[in-house]
Amino acid sequence: MTARKAVDPGDNRRSAPDLVRPHVAAMSGYVPGEQPGDGSFVKLNTNENPYPPSTQVRDAIAAACEDLVLYPDPSAREVREGAAELYGVQADGVLVGNGSDELLSILVRATVAPGQGVAYPVPTYSLYETLVELQDARPVRVPFGADFALPADGLRSADACLIVVCNPNAPSGTMVPRDELEELARRRGDAVVVIDEAYVDFAEATALPLVERFPNVVVLRTLSKSYSLAGLRVGLALTSVALAKELHKVRDSYNVSRIAQAGALAALKDQGAMRAHVAQVRATRRRLTEALEELGFAVPPSQANFVLARRAGQDLAPMVAALRARRILVRYFSDLPDAMRITVGTDDQIDTLLAALREIVLNR
Amino acid sequence: MTARKAVDPGDNRRSAPDLVRPHVAAMSGYVPGEQPGDGSFVKLNTNENPYPPSTQVRDAIAAACEDLVLYPDPSAREVREGAAELYGVQADGVLVGNGSDELLSILVRATVAPGQGVAYPVPTYSLYETLVELQDARPVRVPFGADFALPADGLRSADACLIVVCNPNAPSGTMVPRDELEELARRRGDAVVVIDEAYVDFAEATALPLVERFPNVVVLRTLSKSYSLAGLRVGLALTSVALAKELHKVRDSYNVSRIAQAGALAALKDQGAMRAHVAQVRATRRRLTEALEELGFAVPPSQANFVLARRAGQDLAPMVAALRARRILVRYFSDLPDAMRITVGTDDQIDTLLAALREIVLNR
Repeated sequence: MTARKAVDPGDNRRSAPDLVRPHVAAMSGYVPGEQPGDGSFVKLNTNENPYPPSTQVRDAIAAACEDLVLYPDPSAREVREGAAELYGVQADGVLVGNGSDELLSILVRATVAPGQGVAYPVPTYSLYETLVELQDARPVRVPFGADFALPADGLRSADACLIVVCNPNAPSGTMVPRDELEELARRRGDAVVVIDEAYVDFAEATALPLVERFPNVVVLRTLSKSYSLAGLRVGLALTSVALAKELHKVRDSYNVSRIAQAGALAALKDQGAMRAHVAQVRATRRRLTEALEELGFAVPPSQANFVLARRAGQDLAPMVAALRARRILVRYFSDLPDAMRITVGTDDQIDTLLAALREIVLNR
Repeated sequence: MTARKAVDPGDNRRSAPDLVRPHVAAMSGYVPGEQPGDGSFVKLNTNENPYPPSTQVRDAIAAACEDLVLYPDPSAREVREGAAELYGVQADGVLVGNGSDELLSILVRATVAPGQGVAYPVPTYSLYETLVELQDARPVRVPFGADFALPADGLRSADACLIVVCNPNAPSGTMVPRDELEELARRRGDAVVVIDEAYVDFAEATALPLVERFPNVVVLRTLSKSYSLAGLRVGLALTSVALAKELHKVRDSYNVSRIAQAGALAALKDQGAMRAHVAQVRATRRRLTEALEELGFAVPPSQANFVLARRAGQDLAPMVAALRARRILVRYFSDLPDAMRITVGTDDQIDTLLAALREIVLNR
């Protein structure tokens, strides 16, 4: 008689993919734009501002360093009040996030059950799709119309409890009119309508007035772009007090550090610094657009701090690689292969880019 | 014939609670400990460290302020490598979070589908319950044994795909032995076993060696307590490379700011500052425990930076209120009414607390 085999306590052991939910194991995960470790690149790939933040930010952060031993204000009251004053909304309708990316995540988790639909015009910011996947929800991709017109009919009839419109849109840079968003918000009173205005300070209009009229509208802002604070991670959600109250339940109590709260408040208060840098970016954007058109690119009219340069039917992967070889980073999207997205940098950076592009395009 | 009533486009309008998922609308939300706006309180309610962080942190943050215009490293590589060296784990098995609270949220979202179970000994950190509610999952509360012994049988047989053990536990301050956690990890190879070591630097042992032996074990650390950085928001998850890879998919790419990464790295590198403050807290903890016992409180042996002071069968709400009237904040839990949790402050703070308690208890 052989010895009875001892029960292996590891018999029930699962591998890592089996320890997570099947839809997570099946995901590839969001791929952010490249953040090179060294500073030798002309970095025009992730829509950072080429100009520095307000000098007030540094001082505010230094002061906040004195109290790092204490938890931050869980409600970020001062930032909410500062934002409310600036944007003419109620402080209790404001949520502060660890970047607007976190606020998008909170919105999806608060409003969408697994299997339910989230609608957005495409092509757009690819994080929306990632968040829908993470929630095991159903993406409802509604293609933009010609010249990136809002696909209003498709969004109105979409089987979705959350609708997200990036405006100005990334990666197109284009903007849809506020009255079309207003009509959407009115018709879709059954859904939360998010207007992601990450780039709106570079534009000429905002959907902000819809917040006080439609309790289902959420306008998202970020300090990463116009305020030059991508490294600080602060975003704002502006919505009705009633909806904000629900969203706060999903937000982690201490999601915004003391440093981020102090820096954000200082940045919001120094509108002059932000406006001056935005004006420079807009002037450079105009020049970049004209130069790209002269080189034969189609460039949708951009209201953001980047432009989309297209050559219909031509895969621009080799061109993006050729730029990279010259240590210039722009953004290439595999689902938009005949285009590259170029962040509006300083005039010097854009001159470097244009010189390289002239070489690549004209010698080709 | 009367005019046909115009269709009100707002007919389909939903109220805010109907715009979010039913289980979110039904929630009350996590209630964090009070963070008074003014500094006149003796604040012993949220387990902050009474001593300041390493002076290196301030310098590192000032340096990081120079690059705030750029997004942070999405993988927080330097912090992961610093943690890996310090804890003797693999850098690819480390996740950096916006506080360990965010890492708990990531763990729940990655591993638990709505309706599935999450098990934890109770009473414990109440955020676990909030996160389970947010996920529309099912809490499996397994009461601690006598003297807060690990309820091993209950956890082994729990219908749960995620098990969380806070060790040292909050609010009891007590610790369960590593060999019992090892046995749990072995028996529950079908589940992710999280050991929340937020307070472990104040203790004499750690479960960290389990990480390299059990791919389903996750050890959580935070810089909020022993490193005196509650206001910075940095937590660490230490686990197998395979499980970390899955968890990264759920983590937001830019969840840790440049400031937080720089500050965390500086703090981890200055072990001397942390160790010196921990030694002071432990000495004060001993003195506080003895004085509370002299006043007739039962105090479970604490391995954390707080103690639980109990008077069996007596609701301590009036005592906590009397302390508050003297501008001393301690933590009261409605589900543990005969106890109050007292953070170990400076010797001066604890003397103030003890003098007040003597007045309240002896004059009663």
